Amino acid sequence: MKFFIVHAHPEPNSFNSALTRYAKEVLHTIGHEVIISDLYAMQFNPVSDRRNFTSHKEQKYYNQQSEEMYATQIDGFAPDIKAEMEKLEWCDVLIFQFPLWWFGLPAILKGWVDRVFAMGKIYGGGRFYDNGVFQGKKAMLSLTTGGGLTMYTEIGINGEIRTILYPINHGIFRFVGFDVLPPFIVWGASRIGDERRQAYLEEYKQRLLTINATPPIVYPSLKDFDENFQLKQS
Amino acid sequence: MKFFIVHAHPEPNSFNSALTRYAKEVLHTIGHEVIISDLYAMQFNPVSDRRNFTSHKEQKYYNQQSEEMYATQIDGFAPDIKAEMEKLEWCDVLIFQFPLWWFGLPAILKGWVDRVFAMGKIYGGGRFYDNGVFQGKKAMLSLTTGGGLTMYTEIGINGEIRTILYPINHGIFRFVGFDVLPPFIVWGASRIGDERRQAYLEEYKQRLLTINATPPIVYPSLKDFDENFQLKQS
Repeated sequence: MKFFIVHAHPEPNSFNSALTRYAKEVLHTIGHEVIISDLYAMQFNPVSDRRNFTSHKEQKYYNQQSEEMYATQIDGFAPDIKAEMEKLEWCDVLIFQFPLWWFGLPAILKGWVDRVFAMGKIYGGGRFYDNGVFQGKKAMLSLTTGGGLTMYTEIGINGEIRTILYPINHGIFRFVGFDVLPPFIVWGASRIGDERRQAYLEEYKQRLLTINATPPIVYPSLKDFDENFQLKQS
Repeated sequence: MKFFIVHAHPEPNSFNSALTRYAKEVLHTIGHEVIISDLYAMQFNPVSDRRNFTSHKEQKYYNQQSEEMYATQIDGFAPDIKAEMEKLEWCDVLIFQFPLWWFGLPAILKGWVDRVFAMGKIYGGGRFYDNGVFQGKKAMLSLTTGGGLTMYTEIGINGEIRTILYPINHGIFRFVGFDVLPPFIVWGASRIGDERRQAYLEEYKQRLLTINATPPIVYPSLKDFDENFQLKQS
């Protein structure tokens, strides 16, 4: 299998980095292929604008989706975006490795999505959710949090982690067709000792080794919705 | 009153820009002060890293929160961050104006939060949620969506807009103490005509003029939680 890890942490010796390095090692050992986009190391530019494209359909008014559809037709995406699109096409499994910042993706990773997931190429024309471009592929979040698990339960002060990650799992991964696996979460990463970290690495290893046996999160299907994209009343 | 609008759209003639310009005009007319951070025009850098600081506590290992606390002590934030912190302190009302990209903030705006909302200065030491630094100030999202309203209801295919915005409204605004006003939302912005856009501008005007009479979203209080940050059982 082919794994694509998009890694977003500014410190090369962080626990996030340890998780990515260990994943690569574990997956190689059992014969899988791994590509890593280390966004900080690549100095990836996360700002979506005209620089996404090598030429433009319209000079006066910047309509991003319109430019994306044009670039899809003429193969006009900037080289840094095109490289990431090719990795997405190549992979069977996409993993985002990141620290949860402000209950979401670090900007460098959010902007990777903003720029790479272009209309025309990655979605559009009815290709979304279970009819999405990446149907049959799997995606998974692997993240670290500042706060402990109890803060992220149904009765926790930060709200349920499932709800916090919904815009990413459903709105990004599922939107473009991925089967979304339950997230791997390291709770309170900066406040745990080496022993607990080692246990987390082993837990992550097991998650990676059993990825094909892991049931994806269940979301409704396009066919369950009416012409206004509302759930059909049964 | 003092309004601070953080504006994130790459096209200066977009409807997002029209909303920000109109807000400034309306608010000036009735004697309010307005500061706008137009992030694309400012070429704001959204990547949070060592460049957030003018000097560093630790050279070998980059611990962002530790550097933020150090910078708070020694007044060591980079000028672009410090300028935004001063606007936050100055304002009574904070507004984010943006197009909803991948069910979240555009990266340039997410990174504005990642970099400016620094531990020590903006939160930390028990100062969060209703004990947050910005208690008494108001904050509001003003956004445009690609899809129509029916896609964002409880039975809509994208999920409820309240859930999608929860990580921003609760996880960013409320976390640092703001009273969070209901969002102002332009549905399917690119697919509506001039007449509907004009009606939206008028609707936005009314929202701005009645901001003091608008009840904030109700969230639980710190005092409702136990020592594990879980809701006390009554």
